[in-house]
Amino acid sequence: MSRDFLAARQTVPMSAHLVAVMGRGVVAPGEPVITADDLGFSRGDGCFDSARVITESDGSARVVNLGEHLDRLDASAAALDITGPPRAEWERLVSDALESWTTPGEAVLKLVLTRGSEWSPEAGPLALLTITEKPSRPAAQAGPRGIPRALRAVTLSSGHPSDAFKDAPWLLGGIKTLSYVGNVAAAREARRRGADDAILVSTDGYAMDGPTSGLIVVSDGVMRTPPTGDTGILASVTVDEILSAAAESGMQTRIELIPAGDLRTADGVWLVSSGRGPSPIVELDGEPISVDEDLAARVAAMGGFGTA
Amino acid sequence: MSRDFLAARQTVPMSAHLVAVMGRGVVAPGEPVITADDLGFSRGDGCFDSARVITESDGSARVVNLGEHLDRLDASAAALDITGPPRAEWERLVSDALESWTTPGEAVLKLVLTRGSEWSPEAGPLALLTITEKPSRPAAQAGPRGIPRALRAVTLSSGHPSDAFKDAPWLLGGIKTLSYVGNVAAAREARRRGADDAILVSTDGYAMDGPTSGLIVVSDGVMRTPPTGDTGILASVTVDEILSAAAESGMQTRIELIPAGDLRTADGVWLVSSGRGPSPIVELDGEPISVDEDLAARVAAMGGFGTA
Repeated sequence: MSRDFLAARQTVPMSAHLVAVMGRGVVAPGEPVITADDLGFSRGDGCFDSARVITESDGSARVVNLGEHLDRLDASAAALDITGPPRAEWERLVSDALESWTTPGEAVLKLVLTRGSEWSPEAGPLALLTITEKPSRPAAQAGPRGIPRALRAVTLSSGHPSDAFKDAPWLLGGIKTLSYVGNVAAAREARRRGADDAILVSTDGYAMDGPTSGLIVVSDGVMRTPPTGDTGILASVTVDEILSAAAESGMQTRIELIPAGDLRTADGVWLVSSGRGPSPIVELDGEPISVDEDLAARVAAMGGFGTA
Repeated sequence: MSRDFLAARQTVPMSAHLVAVMGRGVVAPGEPVITADDLGFSRGDGCFDSARVITESDGSARVVNLGEHLDRLDASAAALDITGPPRAEWERLVSDALESWTTPGEAVLKLVLTRGSEWSPEAGPLALLTITEKPSRPAAQAGPRGIPRALRAVTLSSGHPSDAFKDAPWLLGGIKTLSYVGNVAAAREARRRGADDAILVSTDGYAMDGPTSGLIVVSDGVMRTPPTGDTGILASVTVDEILSAAAESGMQTRIELIPAGDLRTADGVWLVSSGRGPSPIVELDGEPISVDEDLAARVAAMGGFGTA
């Protein structure tokens, strides 16, 4: 991301938005499109996935890794027993939306699928998408070499043992459902404590993930992330990308449970999301932790965010 | 509930519904009233409460324990840092809705409050209510003496230790949020196993509650329910009513953790909700468990459901 690009972004108005509904196409963002009995609204009974949108200055927009995000949405829908629209219909809706989206810079595409109307189940699932411009990053907070903004984090209990989701598919471990209020509350608690984000720790003491992000820890030259599956941790397209790139670059990588105590002694800790990229943690529970800038630049580049 | 009353109910069409939105009043039930960026929809970031509506054959309708349900909604909103409409505005909206609701028999009032629009936060929280006619109960399934229909239950892991919510307010224990997908998934798993409902068991082996109901167990003449608070169990207006009535009738009552193994040897086990009343469990994990009909009739009456 060049400085010119950043400067250009700051001239566009904040908060451009787009809404498109399956079967209808693009609608006005402020138009109500969901009924009070939609089970996605009344029970959070639905799923979503988010992907990064990059729009060039000529207005042409593209979605990064759309296929992988649609795969993950399919997997979430299957876990909820919701049969969503065929892939081709999602792709057409995304394509229609991107044609209407010309705000240059970065944005987040959110694909949402709900079980649909409780009172008119014959209408089937509700599918819609939104595109939201990413808030422009104050230059003072942008790290060098394209490194995403560093974060202060606090550790908070996840309320679950690290194997809570083993043989318990009804707990919906690893599923990006619309029932996100706990994630929102953990992020709010982090801000209340003067931090930017939370790292959730299992009741048996392992660092798991952030409320809306995956976790990567580098110690002694080894890159680690905790396993999905029994832990209930969401698979992260960007975490996978970074681990693959690290392995290709010759770094040792491991997928294993990470004792929360390791965070403090690590060479680097990152919370990773597709929208924000790999954000290095510079403070944990009020204490500074070390960040190797060269390593942070390498990890940013592995996730497709850095300029290194 | 007299037999005449039941007969009258069965002549009205199934599935009458009503929707009313704060600031607008009663709207058509099929009208979209929620925007795609409403945080209640996109993140389940909101709360609700449900109460019982009873409508006489002359069309006059009333809500049972409205004050207590509004109190609980207030407590949920406070836990989420959402400032909802003043009590008087809720009462007016409920009153307007009841004037339009004339379907005789039983219905469920649901009060819903969300954090509101993500893109236009200045618009403030969204508040709405729905009234839904209760599906009429096939006579063959109705128990004698007004006892709610007996249920087959399965035990399922809650994924949490019994003290997971101690000193962890961000886990939102005891809060009736819109993030209900896990409750829905547990109920779906119960049906998949050929049962009607689930009893959730903590990872350390205590019977907690149902996905949408509280738990009451009677053993050796003592009525027990597990504590709210550290367990994350929702306070239940109907459970409280039943325990108070039991204590008044001279029965010993205790609020304590109940080992899951006690369910099988109890004199009676109930899943209790304001809509359904205290439903006796007659089968647990595929094995029949005993039900004392006199006791079931007494418990139904304690909850305001029986005819005993």
